[in-house]
Amino acid sequence: MLDGLFRPRAVAVIGASANPYSIGHIVVRNLVQYGFKGPVFPVNPKGGVIRSMQAYESILDVPCDVDLVNISIRNVFVPKVLDECGKKGVKFAIVHSAGFKEVGPEGEALEREMVAAAHRNGIRLFGPNSQGIQNADPEVSVYANFTFVPQKPGNVSIVAQGGGMGEMLKLHLHNVGLGHRMYCSYGNECDLTMPEILAYYGQDEGTRVIMMQTESFKDPRAFLEAAAAITPHKPILAIKAGRTSEGSQAVSSHTGALVDQATMAEAMYRKAGVVQFTDTHQMIKAAIAMSTQDPPPGNRIGIITNTGGPGIQAVDESVSQGLELARWSAAGTAKLKDALFAEASLGNPVDVVATADHNHYHAAVSTLLAEADTDMVMVFFVTAPFTDTNAIAMRIKEATEGSHKPVVVVVETFSENYGLIDKLRAADLPVFEFAEDGARALAAMNRDARLRERPREEAPALDVDRDAAAKILARYRGSGSYLPQADAFALLAAYGVPVPKTAAVAGEGDLAAAVAQTGFPCVLKVDAADVIHKSDAGGVVLGIADTEQLNSAFAAMRAAFPGDGVGFLLMEQKPKGRELIVGATASPGLGSLVLFGLGGVFVEVMKDVAAAVAPLSRPEARELMGLIRGRAVLEGLRGEEGVDMDALEDLLLRVSRLAADMPEIVEMDLNPVFAYPVGVAPCAVDVRIKVS
Amino acid sequence: MLDGLFRPRAVAVIGASANPYSIGHIVVRNLVQYGFKGPVFPVNPKGGVIRSMQAYESILDVPCDVDLVNISIRNVFVPKVLDECGKKGVKFAIVHSAGFKEVGPEGEALEREMVAAAHRNGIRLFGPNSQGIQNADPEVSVYANFTFVPQKPGNVSIVAQGGGMGEMLKLHLHNVGLGHRMYCSYGNECDLTMPEILAYYGQDEGTRVIMMQTESFKDPRAFLEAAAAITPHKPILAIKAGRTSEGSQAVSSHTGALVDQATMAEAMYRKAGVVQFTDTHQMIKAAIAMSTQDPPPGNRIGIITNTGGPGIQAVDESVSQGLELARWSAAGTAKLKDALFAEASLGNPVDVVATADHNHYHAAVSTLLAEADTDMVMVFFVTAPFTDTNAIAMRIKEATEGSHKPVVVVVETFSENYGLIDKLRAADLPVFEFAEDGARALAAMNRDARLRERPREEAPALDVDRDAAAKILARYRGSGSYLPQADAFALLAAYGVPVPKTAAVAGEGDLAAAVAQTGFPCVLKVDAADVIHKSDAGGVVLGIADTEQLNSAFAAMRAAFPGDGVGFLLMEQKPKGRELIVGATASPGLGSLVLFGLGGVFVEVMKDVAAAVAPLSRPEARELMGLIRGRAVLEGLRGEEGVDMDALEDLLLRVSRLAADMPEIVEMDLNPVFAYPVGVAPCAVDVRIKVS
Repeated sequence: MLDGLFRPRAVAVIGASANPYSIGHIVVRNLVQYGFKGPVFPVNPKGGVIRSMQAYESILDVPCDVDLVNISIRNVFVPKVLDECGKKGVKFAIVHSAGFKEVGPEGEALEREMVAAAHRNGIRLFGPNSQGIQNADPEVSVYANFTFVPQKPGNVSIVAQGGGMGEMLKLHLHNVGLGHRMYCSYGNECDLTMPEILAYYGQDEGTRVIMMQTESFKDPRAFLEAAAAITPHKPILAIKAGRTSEGSQAVSSHTGALVDQATMAEAMYRKAGVVQFTDTHQMIKAAIAMSTQDPPPGNRIGIITNTGGPGIQAVDESVSQGLELARWSAAGTAKLKDALFAEASLGNPVDVVATADHNHYHAAVSTLLAEADTDMVMVFFVTAPFTDTNAIAMRIKEATEGSHKPVVVVVETFSENYGLIDKLRAADLPVFEFAEDGARALAAMNRDARLRERPREEAPALDVDRDAAAKILARYRGSGSYLPQADAFALLAAYGVPVPKTAAVAGEGDLAAAVAQTGFPCVLKVDAADVIHKSDAGGVVLGIADTEQLNSAFAAMRAAFPGDGVGFLLMEQKPKGRELIVGATASPGLGSLVLFGLGGVFVEVMKDVAAAVAPLSRPEARELMGLIRGRAVLEGLRGEEGVDMDALEDLLLRVSRLAADMPEIVEMDLNPVFAYPVGVAPCAVDVRIKVS
Repeated sequence: MLDGLFRPRAVAVIGASANPYSIGHIVVRNLVQYGFKGPVFPVNPKGGVIRSMQAYESILDVPCDVDLVNISIRNVFVPKVLDECGKKGVKFAIVHSAGFKEVGPEGEALEREMVAAAHRNGIRLFGPNSQGIQNADPEVSVYANFTFVPQKPGNVSIVAQGGGMGEMLKLHLHNVGLGHRMYCSYGNECDLTMPEILAYYGQDEGTRVIMMQTESFKDPRAFLEAAAAITPHKPILAIKAGRTSEGSQAVSSHTGALVDQATMAEAMYRKAGVVQFTDTHQMIKAAIAMSTQDPPPGNRIGIITNTGGPGIQAVDESVSQGLELARWSAAGTAKLKDALFAEASLGNPVDVVATADHNHYHAAVSTLLAEADTDMVMVFFVTAPFTDTNAIAMRIKEATEGSHKPVVVVVETFSENYGLIDKLRAADLPVFEFAEDGARALAAMNRDARLRERPREEAPALDVDRDAAAKILARYRGSGSYLPQADAFALLAAYGVPVPKTAAVAGEGDLAAAVAQTGFPCVLKVDAADVIHKSDAGGVVLGIADTEQLNSAFAAMRAAFPGDGVGFLLMEQKPKGRELIVGATASPGLGSLVLFGLGGVFVEVMKDVAAAVAPLSRPEARELMGLIRGRAVLEGLRGEEGVDMDALEDLLLRVSRLAADMPEIVEMDLNPVFAYPVGVAPCAVDVRIKVS
């Protein structure tokens, strides 16, 4: 439990200083200014007076129990101070000081020393190189952080790796009067980890929505588990910095992370039901909407406006973001017709026209909210100079009472009328400036609702021969090389992944027995670990129809690939099916990602590949197939038959299970897999598997 | 010239009223409040006092010449009032009144009557159903418009079809202190048209940037010409409402437009060098940046920040939007190293770190602006509590002096420091709130610069046999039907589009002569206007290898398609090449659009088709081929040879010329076109052409 961090009874600030530009000073100021409920103790070995408080020379001099200390002294002094804190019984230490892991090997050593000091003293460390924490819960009101946005209680909690980003999220909640609940920017994450904080937010009753920003995941598996446990109860909105390769390089120079985690993050977010954003502002707007509005039961939006153009912008953006335009029942349309001006448009958007008054707005909003086939409502309102804008605000609010469907309001107005916006916000209605923003906020709420209502299943038990697979892999573990074809196919077969019939061929004498296994037509391949691009090197002969062709193909290949270490493989030639690629790649700290795509131009030109965390559950396997843009191909084009999706699902489950069971597989590439119409099993006709 | 509208010497407001919620009243108020330099004359048949001014009973009573009248009386009275205005010598009338074309046939008749009245009186009509116009040029300061955003002189002019959207654009320029130059929202466009207004803005020296919003184009060709004449000198930023089919339906119910113009708009914008946006806020931000910054010479961005996270967001967004990260010269890096803190990051982004002061910022900005390979700079600045933020603002401004490269600043701060933002804006620096917004504004400036610097060429003269083509089309004009295959191929051939050798076959007796033309292998097709889906109906036999196969294929087809009106076509069978589709479609009011895409799954699944306005110039044909997502296929995959791009360019030029020359062609679909490696002409192996 992190109560000692987020609900401390007393806080000491070690490194508190009279210099108003110092971190220690600002933390003291923030704690006092925002009314921390417990006592604050400035600590400075030189003593002195800080903001009218007498500083203590040592934490040991503080006259009562202290749960939390903020430390902003020189990096090298931190371990020693932690020993004193240990004596004092301190539970949590926020280290603002920088100069640790992020600056190289020397800092890394110092960080290890500091962590050791903390652990021997029973202290959990937050940071270093961190901003600190806040909890705006009025029972605590702790601002143990050196930033500048005023603290006001709200229900959105924020956890950010980067301080600038965390502050940005807090700032823009503040700008719309919402405030926040808990806040932290955690820096180097040397001891206390982001997933622990996330789990704490998840259990906090005052937190309705969580926003997070991450640059790199220290423990992806722990994050995945923490997030998945929270999303059934409350939404998590997330930005992962570094979605482009250039951005990922920038992350690396900011945090020292080496691995590109963008694909992994996307797969984890989906699995955990976390809503991903790429744009900071859009994430904040979604949080604003979710802070007061319930999730929409479906994806059908109703739009009300008093001016045409912004209504169309809302339609374009809604549809682009996956919402559908609701249609009204006959009774609903009749109600609108009765209540609105004759020149009003009764379609979707409902255009109440610029001269509409508060009763027109009330009628439109309440009618749409009562429609069974409308799941959410966006109200656009330009403050035309001939209307009583305050009355309109009041009546919009009244119309939403008693409904659980989300409503957002977009107001186009000049600063003279900002009071109206304040009134709507005070009535717990989210207000935005642009029609597109309203549409996007509702679309994000829909994404969240649809993500969170997905069936959650465990990866199923499968009839696999784990021992056989382990035995094969044992021969290569530690080699860092690719498996020979014969063993790669055998490995897949052990997990029930359909592969062609194969037979190893060492010399000419094996051909007859081999072809008795595979039949004609068959394929002859060279099978050596170092011949990866076999077809480019002339190491594959397709369509061998009879014994004569087989003999001559073998003779030619034997001549082309001489040497003792070279084997050959004879394979059943499968009829051409729909070309797919299925793969797996090790994802450090998480396990493996499964990749799925259509072969050929789809992957080469369109980069149309999707990834998911292994092992897959059945719904996840099904979802993965639906994530590619070319998914219509699976269903069949122009009257062609589609592929056997159940069989493909089974293949994905087995590949994902193999990748998850055998962490030494760093790369697995089934390319192509041929898929066939219903009733015919797919088949992995070529495979590359690399072990660590 | 529209001086009488945008620079009137005197304005009369017909329908001026003492009711402060009436349009006539508000227009009088706006004219007076924002200091119109000429006299304002309220006109009301009942007389009375309006805002302390005595109303005239008739425009004829007004004691001096009046260039412009604003009319907000009941629709049916407008024609009569225009007769009086004519007598008075009025040049322009803004009709605010609604109830014309937008309400159906009766209103449409009234609109015609009104236009006739205007024309017989030598008056140009603006509207009806319109907001009006503004010109904030201090020499005129005319606010002949009933909206609410205060008027302040700026250099961005706005032309919007929808009033709510126009006001939105104006409002958000105002919110950042920029104001605007000219403004209008033109409603029904019954006489004076949007292209005329655009041309006037183009010639206005006080207009540096134009923003426009359009729901439907009344005269697309006139718009194209007006826009293309302006963009070499100043940027035009545009939003077309209705980019989704749902949005386009909403446009239709708002304006009565029937045709989906989204594809046409995109093609026109590209041809004219207009920068298209889908998001209102992003367009406004681009206008804000362009209002003070020059176009970037290239696409390489340099980013400076004092906190890591937002810098990474800027990188991700920049790269996603087509910018490249600049690299510094060795000298530049050395300069940064000298000037910045030891812990600063010297890559891109430059992270000056949170404790950086004004001199660090100055050094970073001036160093990057001096780099030859940096085309634009984004400066991010979180107002850390330990820095002198005002000094930083001043020094950033100083560092930009003397450079023509665009600079945008993103400030993360709390309301206490808004004075700093005002200072930066007063120094003509665009300031945004989010890193992504800064990146997008610069990316939009880059799109504009690259669009506008493209070579502008005429469509080239081509050796085509226009007479032969016209003769073929003359036989079908007015039929509304598809051409038989033989004539469709002949039409293409007349324009030099490569087609297979063909020969018409009426009966068995023609086969020998026909195959002498085509050779083997050949294709036999039924050729009747009503058999469009020939292959589905069994009307195509491919791969006929010899006379025997030909005879039996013909016998079978003859039996399957009996009747006198049915002909047959024998065609050379071309070897399979890269499948493309090339098409043309009539675009009312503009001419024709040429369509280009890759065949098969690219078009069916990925909808990967691009469009351009016919006829194409050479650079436009080349550009069109580069617009599809699958363009890499044209260049060749995995060591395959690419296709002959010059030959393909020639084919596109010819198809586009045919479509442009022959407006009776409403639909032309060359599908597939086979393209081959360099030196081999492409060939349109199947074609459908429909005439009106």
